[in-house]
Amino acid sequence: MNVEGLILDIDGVISRGRKPIERAIDGYRILKDVGIKTVFVSNNSTRSRRIMFERFRQFGLDVDEDELIIATHATALHIAKENGRTRVFTTGEDGLKEELINLGHELVDYRDAEYLVVGSNRGINFDIFTKALRLALNSEVRYVAVNPDRVFPAEDGPIPGTGLIIGALYWITGRQPDVIVGKPSKIIIDQAIERLGVSRERVAIVGDQIDVDVLAGKNAGIKSILVLSGVTNQENYEMKVRETGVKPDFIFRDLYELAQKLKSGK
Amino acid sequence: MNVEGLILDIDGVISRGRKPIERAIDGYRILKDVGIKTVFVSNNSTRSRRIMFERFRQFGLDVDEDELIIATHATALHIAKENGRTRVFTTGEDGLKEELINLGHELVDYRDAEYLVVGSNRGINFDIFTKALRLALNSEVRYVAVNPDRVFPAEDGPIPGTGLIIGALYWITGRQPDVIVGKPSKIIIDQAIERLGVSRERVAIVGDQIDVDVLAGKNAGIKSILVLSGVTNQENYEMKVRETGVKPDFIFRDLYELAQKLKSGK
Repeated sequence: MNVEGLILDIDGVISRGRKPIERAIDGYRILKDVGIKTVFVSNNSTRSRRIMFERFRQFGLDVDEDELIIATHATALHIAKENGRTRVFTTGEDGLKEELINLGHELVDYRDAEYLVVGSNRGINFDIFTKALRLALNSEVRYVAVNPDRVFPAEDGPIPGTGLIIGALYWITGRQPDVIVGKPSKIIIDQAIERLGVSRERVAIVGDQIDVDVLAGKNAGIKSILVLSGVTNQENYEMKVRETGVKPDFIFRDLYELAQKLKSGK
Repeated sequence: MNVEGLILDIDGVISRGRKPIERAIDGYRILKDVGIKTVFVSNNSTRSRRIMFERFRQFGLDVDEDELIIATHATALHIAKENGRTRVFTTGEDGLKEELINLGHELVDYRDAEYLVVGSNRGINFDIFTKALRLALNSEVRYVAVNPDRVFPAEDGPIPGTGLIIGALYWITGRQPDVIVGKPSKIIIDQAIERLGVSRERVAIVGDQIDVDVLAGKNAGIKSILVLSGVTNQENYEMKVRETGVKPDFIFRDLYELAQKLKSGK
């Protein structure tokens, strides 16, 4: 397989919601033992890295700060690369705000904003929508979305993702984001490859979703590995491939099976 | 012109926001004097008829209950025609709820709803979106929108219309409303024609918006009259016609000029 670095999805790969997948945790330790470099990539648009580290500790995993790229942080980083310290209006929650502030951006009233940053918000209201709408109508304002996620599976049923706000603004103004940072965009994947410090052809992305993880791999021009420990299974695999038009380069039952394969190849 | 009944838009025709257009008020009185039947049709998705009557009284107009069709009421009426008394979950405000209850519908928790009724809501929140999303994902639930309006011009700038919710649900679920009641839909126009009691070929719609009022006229197969007292003016007329692909049958400066024309033709 010739892989030295792995970009790992979190939900459906290492955990399901708040529950760790024990075999995957074992798999992760094998990867470390055999010297595979890893970085976790999450599309989450509401949490800061700090909150995610706490979750990893609860899983019994000791993950470096450098080993986690979350879309909130990736968005703040991407804006800094594009425009330096920036005056931002965001629809998002405290986790996103924390990451924006940490990278030197200034959260401002919508009238003073150079960037509109759209992230999901469980406290969304008419006032936030109105401000976002007015910014989206201003072509001089750059419009960045943390991820394009439509729905998120909560315990009692689906809840809206960032797509709630993207869709509302698109319907009203005809405008879509200038930049989407999270998967399947290559922006967050390029950040992850840079973080791994491994040449692109020796990096693979590992995830449970064909339209998110596998597609992100294709968009970034790297190998993709599907694991069947999350939303994709033997039953819906063919349908998902038809819907998206992309196929993973490799398929494994879970991260443990992948780790065993990589170990045996060493 | 051979017109016996007029369907009158409100904003941009008889008033601008809370301010009456004095010439139009005079024009309306002329219409009454010469025996033209009239019905006001509004796309408003948050107010009940009761609130609208109060506004007319403030304009110095004594308008009959039968002379006003507002999209909230028209929606309640349309559902009653389709399905009798119905269990409804609505995203809307008290004005819409009042009209639904007045026509015998029951407002229920989303789990018990047969109909999803989408109307604008200045108190919109994540919980309402989540419930609407789950209903839109259920193909057994009929999905009705009060109007398709994208933005509404508030005093300090544009604010989102009902399209905020329609767009969000469309982006997330791929589903659009099964029925839209307000203009440019023919549903509310057909209700207005029935109310006038005038044969269809002798009815015209009067409005200030080509993509709303004139298009509604075309959709319902009746004459359309554009007045230049609202959003459409000499400067943007050609562009609006190009955008929408429809042209009014007649154009007048305002309702007063139209009324004078109809008076002289009698």
